[in-house]
Amino acid sequence: MTTTEIGPRGSLTDEELRAVDLYWRAANYLSVGQIYLLDNPLLREPLAPEHIKPRLLGHWGTTPGLNFVYAHLQRQVRRRGTDMIWIMGPGHGGPSGVATAWLDGTYTEIYPEITRDAEGMRRLFRRFSFPGGVPSHYAPETPGSIHEGGELGYALSHAYGAAFDNPGLVVAAVVGDGEAETGPLAGSWAANRFIDPATDGAVLPILHLNGYKIANPTVLARMPERELAALMEGHGHEPVFISGDDPAVLHREMAEVLDRALDGIAEIQRRARDGADRGGLRWPMIVLRTPKGWTGPEEVDGLPVEGTWRSHQVPLAAVRTDPGHLGQLERWMRSYRPEELFGADGAPVPETTALVVPEGDHRISANPVANGGLLLKDLTLPDFRRYAVEVPSPGAVQHEATRVLGGYLRDVIRANPDDFRIFGPDETASNRLGAVFEATDRAWDLPLLPTDESLAPGGRVMEVLSEHLCQGWLEGYLLTGRHGLFNSYEAFIHIVDAMLNQHAKWLKVTRAIPWRRPIASLNYLLSSHVWRQDHNGFSHQDPGFIDHVVNKKPEIVRVYLPPDANTLLSTADHCLRMRDTVNVVIAGKQPALSYLTMDQSIAHCTRGLGIWEWASTDGGADPDVVLACAGDVPTLETLAAADLLRTHLPELRVRVVNVVDLMRLQPAEEHPHGLTDRSYDALFTTDKPVIFAFHGYPWLIHRLTYRRNGHDNLHVRGYKEEGTTTTPFDMVMLNDLDRFHLVMDVIDRVPGLSVKAAHLSQRMHDARLRCRAHTREYGDDAPEIRDWTWGS
Amino acid sequence: MTTTEIGPRGSLTDEELRAVDLYWRAANYLSVGQIYLLDNPLLREPLAPEHIKPRLLGHWGTTPGLNFVYAHLQRQVRRRGTDMIWIMGPGHGGPSGVATAWLDGTYTEIYPEITRDAEGMRRLFRRFSFPGGVPSHYAPETPGSIHEGGELGYALSHAYGAAFDNPGLVVAAVVGDGEAETGPLAGSWAANRFIDPATDGAVLPILHLNGYKIANPTVLARMPERELAALMEGHGHEPVFISGDDPAVLHREMAEVLDRALDGIAEIQRRARDGADRGGLRWPMIVLRTPKGWTGPEEVDGLPVEGTWRSHQVPLAAVRTDPGHLGQLERWMRSYRPEELFGADGAPVPETTALVVPEGDHRISANPVANGGLLLKDLTLPDFRRYAVEVPSPGAVQHEATRVLGGYLRDVIRANPDDFRIFGPDETASNRLGAVFEATDRAWDLPLLPTDESLAPGGRVMEVLSEHLCQGWLEGYLLTGRHGLFNSYEAFIHIVDAMLNQHAKWLKVTRAIPWRRPIASLNYLLSSHVWRQDHNGFSHQDPGFIDHVVNKKPEIVRVYLPPDANTLLSTADHCLRMRDTVNVVIAGKQPALSYLTMDQSIAHCTRGLGIWEWASTDGGADPDVVLACAGDVPTLETLAAADLLRTHLPELRVRVVNVVDLMRLQPAEEHPHGLTDRSYDALFTTDKPVIFAFHGYPWLIHRLTYRRNGHDNLHVRGYKEEGTTTTPFDMVMLNDLDRFHLVMDVIDRVPGLSVKAAHLSQRMHDARLRCRAHTREYGDDAPEIRDWTWGS
Repeated sequence: MTTTEIGPRGSLTDEELRAVDLYWRAANYLSVGQIYLLDNPLLREPLAPEHIKPRLLGHWGTTPGLNFVYAHLQRQVRRRGTDMIWIMGPGHGGPSGVATAWLDGTYTEIYPEITRDAEGMRRLFRRFSFPGGVPSHYAPETPGSIHEGGELGYALSHAYGAAFDNPGLVVAAVVGDGEAETGPLAGSWAANRFIDPATDGAVLPILHLNGYKIANPTVLARMPERELAALMEGHGHEPVFISGDDPAVLHREMAEVLDRALDGIAEIQRRARDGADRGGLRWPMIVLRTPKGWTGPEEVDGLPVEGTWRSHQVPLAAVRTDPGHLGQLERWMRSYRPEELFGADGAPVPETTALVVPEGDHRISANPVANGGLLLKDLTLPDFRRYAVEVPSPGAVQHEATRVLGGYLRDVIRANPDDFRIFGPDETASNRLGAVFEATDRAWDLPLLPTDESLAPGGRVMEVLSEHLCQGWLEGYLLTGRHGLFNSYEAFIHIVDAMLNQHAKWLKVTRAIPWRRPIASLNYLLSSHVWRQDHNGFSHQDPGFIDHVVNKKPEIVRVYLPPDANTLLSTADHCLRMRDTVNVVIAGKQPALSYLTMDQSIAHCTRGLGIWEWASTDGGADPDVVLACAGDVPTLETLAAADLLRTHLPELRVRVVNVVDLMRLQPAEEHPHGLTDRSYDALFTTDKPVIFAFHGYPWLIHRLTYRRNGHDNLHVRGYKEEGTTTTPFDMVMLNDLDRFHLVMDVIDRVPGLSVKAAHLSQRMHDARLRCRAHTREYGDDAPEIRDWTWGS
Repeated sequence: MTTTEIGPRGSLTDEELRAVDLYWRAANYLSVGQIYLLDNPLLREPLAPEHIKPRLLGHWGTTPGLNFVYAHLQRQVRRRGTDMIWIMGPGHGGPSGVATAWLDGTYTEIYPEITRDAEGMRRLFRRFSFPGGVPSHYAPETPGSIHEGGELGYALSHAYGAAFDNPGLVVAAVVGDGEAETGPLAGSWAANRFIDPATDGAVLPILHLNGYKIANPTVLARMPERELAALMEGHGHEPVFISGDDPAVLHREMAEVLDRALDGIAEIQRRARDGADRGGLRWPMIVLRTPKGWTGPEEVDGLPVEGTWRSHQVPLAAVRTDPGHLGQLERWMRSYRPEELFGADGAPVPETTALVVPEGDHRISANPVANGGLLLKDLTLPDFRRYAVEVPSPGAVQHEATRVLGGYLRDVIRANPDDFRIFGPDETASNRLGAVFEATDRAWDLPLLPTDESLAPGGRVMEVLSEHLCQGWLEGYLLTGRHGLFNSYEAFIHIVDAMLNQHAKWLKVTRAIPWRRPIASLNYLLSSHVWRQDHNGFSHQDPGFIDHVVNKKPEIVRVYLPPDANTLLSTADHCLRMRDTVNVVIAGKQPALSYLTMDQSIAHCTRGLGIWEWASTDGGADPDVVLACAGDVPTLETLAAADLLRTHLPELRVRVVNVVDLMRLQPAEEHPHGLTDRSYDALFTTDKPVIFAFHGYPWLIHRLTYRRNGHDNLHVRGYKEEGTTTTPFDMVMLNDLDRFHLVMDVIDRVPGLSVKAAHLSQRMHDARLRCRAHTREYGDDAPEIRDWTWGS
């Protein structure tokens, strides 16, 4: 059934039809071989149980459809000279990615031991889903992939991320009908409202309906076709439907719909690039219906398999023990007529690839865009010191750290007009990075109103109220060799916890793959953090993203807590230069004291942590107590506590240690940034009480330091899930992180203090009650809290 | 503009029009008052700076539209006797929820100090977004809410969850156009494909387009209207559009579209309940366009505000200091004509509420469905002991734990046909709970094919490939007084990390609100866990959800790691009886050894952890070493290690401790399940090496125990992000959790062992190499590993 009539201008010659079918059959043969065969790859002898893998792992269901799409995409690339990559949305399409890369020759170029002959084919089959081999997804080990697709939902967002600022590129994104049920994918259709046909490339979504997910039909496959068409039109697309199971018919139709879609894309881009408007043209997309497990066993043990969910994994499960299954497998594999596809040596015969596979880097599996590190250029970074704020003395003047950073980011955008973007869920202005709009706009390809500000096609700031889409776009952008920054509220970045997992896993694996070149780091700037949710309250208070990130491989993750504006600038510059890591930077947007000059900031950030002598009273010698802090609000409270101690217990030797780079706390053998024990001990002592005021959940500090000397003396204050809509100081009081409580903690823990200390502790307790009462009465913090400065 | 013509059958009389407008104006007045006023609530004297709050917190933009919707919904309830709750999707609509509950009288019934007079109004205004007061969202403190809406995306999924098995209920779900951009919301439109019009209630989505999110226009507001209509039709809805800013016109239109929508819902339900099919009827939904900040200041300081993003928060920011702003605020508030709305005492005059507010529990703000604990009934639970597997001796026979559980769950479904459901992303069969399909089907309201199995409207198993939708459905179902279970792959449950945060925060807050009655716990069954991803590999390996959950308030969270089938049954029974917690149960689905009889399981699970004497060689006295374990695979490896030690170092006194309830490890003062130090020491000793084999990331055990005596002797093995597609035993070897490595750890840590021990360590090392080589050669584990049993 073809809902939309396909015109007579199809370009597929009979010779090409035969070629594309040969390529497809070869890819299918190689896919089945990967799932089943240990040996006898070309079936040159009758199939026997010892040729079969002892454990049958892998998924057949989606694979023939993927091979079909790939064959046709590649033919179009060859014919048109298009620059194209593809995104394999359906999970477990690994056999397809491996098979086609081997057919194209790419696989052997990268893995020379997997030769293009019978022995190479045997090795190829054996390594698939085999211990020490390659995974069953389109994993980083497979050339041509930027999207593993283990966790579903991100095919379209990755595709659009790859297309931004790649005006010559078409990204074909295959979306499975299972994946299409996920929230993140459903929200990604809106991405076409943000793409600029003049300066960006294009995404061609191919919704592949094979009817089932694991054990169930899918919503998109079963909804009435007129509703599906309406849905795609609603998403701003012009859908074309093709459907069937007769390869001869479907090859011709697929060639025609791809012709139409690629022509349609070219026409939209031509008009935009000529300065004309789109005139009602909508982005093409294709709905392709083929049976799940197409060309596989129709029935197994009397139950229907092809076209049902039963073909999801391994359709014939007992091949090694059941001669009936073994015979069925052999007939299935021979149905692709391997003798026509592969020569005597086992290499594909020329006809199998000749009219389908393009030359060199034009092969989809070889396109350097899918190995973004190859294309990566260093950012042109302005000197961040130029944006420094004046800090005449520590803790005396206030700045909004993120607003200062905004000026720097504005000039990063100016200096890198085609490979740096900022992403965020409509919080760039709220997070006070508004200076970037002096240099650019928000990307927007929908109608404008006269009252709009800073909205235009091609804007470098991508704002959509979907953390999933922001993260997916940024990942796609980075994986194809560009740079970016995701700014978000701290609490809601948990929305992308699972996406972060997948990206971190990709980075961990690619670090061990020499041909995968390093890509730019994924940078998070988390503002509107847990301690300043004055407008929002408890629902917006969660500093746990750090905990989540720190579970990833240590070489992949960095966490920075710059305490003020200049240290934020220095940190940002550092992060924008890094490769193959995930960097989390947490910084407040509210007016807050600055402590360090730019020179001091650079020194402090370079060390990652250090003693603040100006705030310490240990005279550089042994302290009685260490006040450690990480994060802007904890640093403020720690300094205010140090100030109280210096005033009221001047004989107490207090050392103040500030931590910017949280990973310095881990042992050197566990994290590349980890301090040696000797350096750690020199800062924190081995036997003195350490009162650590931390931005996040307190136990994270224990987790990072439990192997350290003196860990038993460490007492951490942090967020303990107490909060509501209240004043900044009330928030720290609710969580016992306030200056008064820190002083009480010191007095509790330093042995042998005087009666004066006990009195001070009582005064601190009273001060807390006074502050609480003031807040409840006036709805605001008392002025002596609000206006406190160092030494005031 | 009204795209769809509204018929002449509108039911709104002129008197009702006036009444609904009065109610709306009163709600708007009360909303503005909450944002601004400390005093002078009725403007009985000229507004002065001292009447204004010192910190202006809150959000005006969405509020007037919400008040408009609420007034009309409530009028329909009054007129029709419908049972209705609403979901306030837009964030920061708190003023609306508070204002309408006070108008309805519900607020004063719950909070008697907030009287329905001038003094009560003053207190109401003051407490909003004030320290110690109520949050700016539709928080648990506000009656009528089951959906706080701080983090956006879950309005529709919560609404559908509430509607399941509530055949008389209509859930009106207001979806903001900001929220509509999120992935989870975009994916929730598909929920209407799973609702049974015969046995479930209905959801009426009201897409409220006010044009802007925080600082940006929204995609749904700016896309061409014909595309928006197509989108809604594509989602299986019949959309009706209304739009404008003239209240007199819009009141009439809103009444008419609500008439049509509620009539349409009733017609679909009537046909289904009469056994007829739907005959092309589609679920109604409403698209309502009103200006952002409707009826607020048109311009402030020369810039347009009403109808733009500038009305998002507090439109007049300088009221306390700028007399111009102050005057504007006073004119704005007086524009609602408070003298018509409230009597001399400050209570609403009868005309303000008479024709709008229904009686008693029919008031939307008072509906008991929105305080689900009121309606909660205990589940009828079959005796879980009946499902016990035979365990003739420990570690000798295998069972698939989740398959055993499936039989129990089948009978839970049978015994509770209208208040228990199972939710999952198409993994119920994969997770081997297939027995449930003997009792029920998967819910499905789309066409069926002859090859389909276990699919029907009204099925008790909800499967959709969206963890977000599953979680949102379950939350909505629990919050309205029912029970459920979410079964999912362990790695991908991180997809709902952020949703879990919000639900846990809701539970924490409601525990302190006496009128909110306890609801059933949220139960996760995580199978297909990190150690058995034979088909999937690295992308599916992540045990970090436990870490995420453990960051929540201790009284809210429980984590269980039953080691075998009988302990899983006992744990499940326990979890289904709990209230107001989040329970995470992790259990394998693969064949695995059973250790405990049912009686032993009950005793073990009741203690939460304990010594397994049968596996220990310390003779009940002081051990030389403790082997602790939590999780099925770590338990297997620990027992195999204990077996090796017993055989090869029989003189070594080994104690085996198994942990089911992870929270027992925390100190008693930190978690309600925490062991006292004395009990902990009695199990783990204070001075002997403890080798702890853990299911998840090893540092979690350190985090839970860092305050314990003997923590320095604790050595934890767990998942350290090493993995791929490989055999089960290779997985544990990659992460140093295997039996051989555990033996080596023991030999490393127990002082004074013999030369024989050093030789054993070398043999363990060699055994690892042998196993690795076997796996690489045969793609499978060596038989002596695969077939190991206790004492074999």
